[in-house]
Amino acid sequence: MKIIEGGVCAAKGFSAAGVHCGIRRNKTKRDLALIYSEVPASAAAVYTTNLVKGAPLTVTKHHIADGVAQAVICNSGNANTCNADGIEVAEKMSELVAQNIDVRPNDVIVASTGVIGQKLDITPIAVGMPLLVSELAQSCEASVHAAEGIMTTDTVLKEIAVEFTVGGKVCHIGGIAKGSGMIHPNMATMLVFITTDAAISPAMLQKALSGDIQNTFNMVSVDGDTSTNDMVAILANGMAGNETITEENEDYAEFMRALNTITVYLCRKIAGDGEGATKLLECAVSGARTEEIAKTVAKSVICSSLFKAAMFGADANWGRVLCAIGYSGADVDVTKIDVSFESKAGRIDVCLGGAGIPFSEEEAKEVLSEKEITVLIELGSGEESAKAWGCDLTYDYVKINGDYRT
Amino acid sequence: MKIIEGGVCAAKGFSAAGVHCGIRRNKTKRDLALIYSEVPASAAAVYTTNLVKGAPLTVTKHHIADGVAQAVICNSGNANTCNADGIEVAEKMSELVAQNIDVRPNDVIVASTGVIGQKLDITPIAVGMPLLVSELAQSCEASVHAAEGIMTTDTVLKEIAVEFTVGGKVCHIGGIAKGSGMIHPNMATMLVFITTDAAISPAMLQKALSGDIQNTFNMVSVDGDTSTNDMVAILANGMAGNETITEENEDYAEFMRALNTITVYLCRKIAGDGEGATKLLECAVSGARTEEIAKTVAKSVICSSLFKAAMFGADANWGRVLCAIGYSGADVDVTKIDVSFESKAGRIDVCLGGAGIPFSEEEAKEVLSEKEITVLIELGSGEESAKAWGCDLTYDYVKINGDYRT
Repeated sequence: MKIIEGGVCAAKGFSAAGVHCGIRRNKTKRDLALIYSEVPASAAAVYTTNLVKGAPLTVTKHHIADGVAQAVICNSGNANTCNADGIEVAEKMSELVAQNIDVRPNDVIVASTGVIGQKLDITPIAVGMPLLVSELAQSCEASVHAAEGIMTTDTVLKEIAVEFTVGGKVCHIGGIAKGSGMIHPNMATMLVFITTDAAISPAMLQKALSGDIQNTFNMVSVDGDTSTNDMVAILANGMAGNETITEENEDYAEFMRALNTITVYLCRKIAGDGEGATKLLECAVSGARTEEIAKTVAKSVICSSLFKAAMFGADANWGRVLCAIGYSGADVDVTKIDVSFESKAGRIDVCLGGAGIPFSEEEAKEVLSEKEITVLIELGSGEESAKAWGCDLTYDYVKINGDYRT
Repeated sequence: MKIIEGGVCAAKGFSAAGVHCGIRRNKTKRDLALIYSEVPASAAAVYTTNLVKGAPLTVTKHHIADGVAQAVICNSGNANTCNADGIEVAEKMSELVAQNIDVRPNDVIVASTGVIGQKLDITPIAVGMPLLVSELAQSCEASVHAAEGIMTTDTVLKEIAVEFTVGGKVCHIGGIAKGSGMIHPNMATMLVFITTDAAISPAMLQKALSGDIQNTFNMVSVDGDTSTNDMVAILANGMAGNETITEENEDYAEFMRALNTITVYLCRKIAGDGEGATKLLECAVSGARTEEIAKTVAKSVICSSLFKAAMFGADANWGRVLCAIGYSGADVDVTKIDVSFESKAGRIDVCLGGAGIPFSEEEAKEVLSEKEITVLIELGSGEESAKAWGCDLTYDYVKINGDYRT
C-alpha cells in the first residue's frame, strides 16, 4: 500500500469539481462540490446519531437504499436543517445534478453544511450547476476544488489517497473531509466522501464502513457536540477490475486496511484542525479488560475540557487524566493505572499505579509543547486497547463560537 | 420561611472558624475551616461518583456510618487525593480536631480541596489547629471565615441561611459552599456544608439530602468534569426542639422545602461563579413525557460547549440548543420543541415546533446580554419538567485551566 495523489479523483472513473455558486457571500470561497463516477457505484454511508437530522441525510438515506449511487452533491454555507422545505430542496439538488449530467436523481448523494434553521435558496445552486458540471475533471486540482467546496471553518484542506492491491489488481481509494469544528454562525458538520475503484458489493461496502468508523470517526471529538449533519459516504465503482468482494475474505481484509488508512488519516486531520486548535491530541489506552472499556476511557479523556485546556497550556496535569478516567463510567482499577505523555520531543512518565511520580516539569513542558501529543494510559487489567483523537481547548475556540452571528 | 444571616452559624449550637495555617503560601488566604456543633448531630453526606476518590471522602464515609457527627474540618490548597498516605493524613486531621476540642475523632467530617497527587503535609494543620479552635464563634463573621477557608478559584463567597417552622418550633438551616470550578494547578471540587438545628433522624436526613441533590447539585455543570473530591455534608443537631422527624410527614416536607431553598441558592451561586464565567445559565425544560427525559435534556444543553460559548457571545443560537437536545439520548419528538430565551430584559421566542421563527436579533442581544439567562425548552409531549444550571464558556476558563502549573 502506498500513499498517492489525487484525493477523490485517484480512483479510476471518478471526477470532481468545486465552484462558487453564491450561497456564500465571499466570492473567492467555493460553496458547491460535485463528485461523479462514470458508472453507477456501490454506495454506503453512515450518519449522525443526533435526533435532529439535516434534510439531506434523509434524502441520501432514501437514495442509497438500493446500495447504488453515482454522484455526490454538497454545498457549504447552509446546512438545510430545521427547515420546513428541507426535503424538497435536497431532492431538488439531486434533480439539478440529474438535469446536467447523465445520472438518475435517485443515484445522487446529497449533503449540506453551514447555518441551520435558515432556508436554503435553491437559486444559486440551479444557476451554478452547469458551471459545476462543466468543471468536472479527474485531476488533483479537481479533488482540491471539491475539498475546498465543502470546507467551513476548516483551516486546512483534508485529502488523502492510497493505492493497494486486491486479488492481483491495483486499486485506489481516496477521500476528502471537512472538519467537525462548529461553524460561525451556527453548527457545522463532519463530512467525509470516499471514492474507490475496488469492486465490492453494497452490503460488504456498508459493513466495511460501519465497522471502520467504530474505531475511527466515532473516536474523534472536537468539543463533544454531535452535529446534525455528520455523514461519511463511500462510492465503489469496481473499475479496478478485481473480483467483486462479496464476503469477509482476504480481499475484504485488504480493502479494510486501505479504507482504515484513509479514515485514520482524515480523523487525525479533522481532530488537529478542530476549531481554534493548536494541537492534535491522541489518547492511546492499553491494558483494558475489554475493548469497550478502552474506548470509553479514551473518549472520556479526549473530551475533558480540563485536560484539553491543560494541553493548550503544555501542563502535564495528569490528575485531570485520572479524573476523566474516574468519571468515564468504565469499570477500572484506579490503583493500576499508569499515565505517560509522548511527542516528537520524547516521553515522560507521570503517574504509576494511580499515584503521581516525580518528573521534570521542564522536560514535560518540552514534550507537551509539540504540535502532536499522545497521552498513553495503561490500565493494567487486560489486553484490549483503543485510540481516540481530539484537540486542545483554546481562546480561539471560545472566540469562534462566542462571536455574534450578526 | 425567610432568609436570614449567619450561614452555617445561623442554626442554634453551631459555631465556625476559618484561619490561615500555611498550606497555601499566600498568608492572606484562609486555608483551614472548622464547623462545630455543641452536641452530637445527625449527619448525612453525598459524595462524587468519580471512581478516583479523595482520601477524605473515604474517611468521612467511615466516620458518619453511624449517622452521627459533631464537627467538619476542611482545608483548601491540597485535595489529599492520589496520595499513598492519604487516609492516614485524613484520619490525623480528625484526631487533631479531637485533641483540641471536645469531640470524638470518629465524629469529624473531613474534607480537602486543591491540588491532587501532592502529599498533604499535616504540620501546618497541626500547628494551626489550636488557633482555629480558639477562633470558633457563633457569628456571621465566623461563618464567613469558614466559607473563605474552603474557597479555591471562587471569586464570590457562597453562604445562605433561612428560618422555617417545624411543628410550631422555629428552626434554622444554613450552608456554605465552594465552587465546582477547577482549580489552578489541578482540579478542584464542589464542597457544601449545611447545618441545621432541626431535629431529624440520621436516616431521614440522608433521605432528604440524597433526594434533594437529584434536582439540585446533580443538575449543576461548570465544565462537565466531575471532581474527585465533591461532597455535600449536613449536620442536624436538634437544638430547635421540634419533635424529631422520623418519617415522611408534613414536618419532613417542611424541612425538605427549607433544605431545597438552601441548595438551589448555592447551586445558582456555584454555577454563576464557574471558572471564568460571566453569566449564570439556567435551562428550564417543560412538557417532558418523564422527569428523566426533562433532566437529560436540561443537562445536555447546559453542558454543551457550543451553547455555552454562544451565551458568552450573547448569540441567540437556538440551533445549538436543538443540536444538544438531539444528541442527549433522550427520546423526544424534535418537531414539537419550542425554544425561548429569557432574562431580566425580557423574553424572546426563537424556535417553534422544531423550526426557526423570525425574531429581532437586536432584541435577542439585549435579552442575552444580562448576567442571568434562562433558556426555556418546551418539549410538547407531557407534564414533567426539570432545571439545570451552568455558566458560559469564556476566554478566562481557558486561561485559568491552560496556565502552566509552575
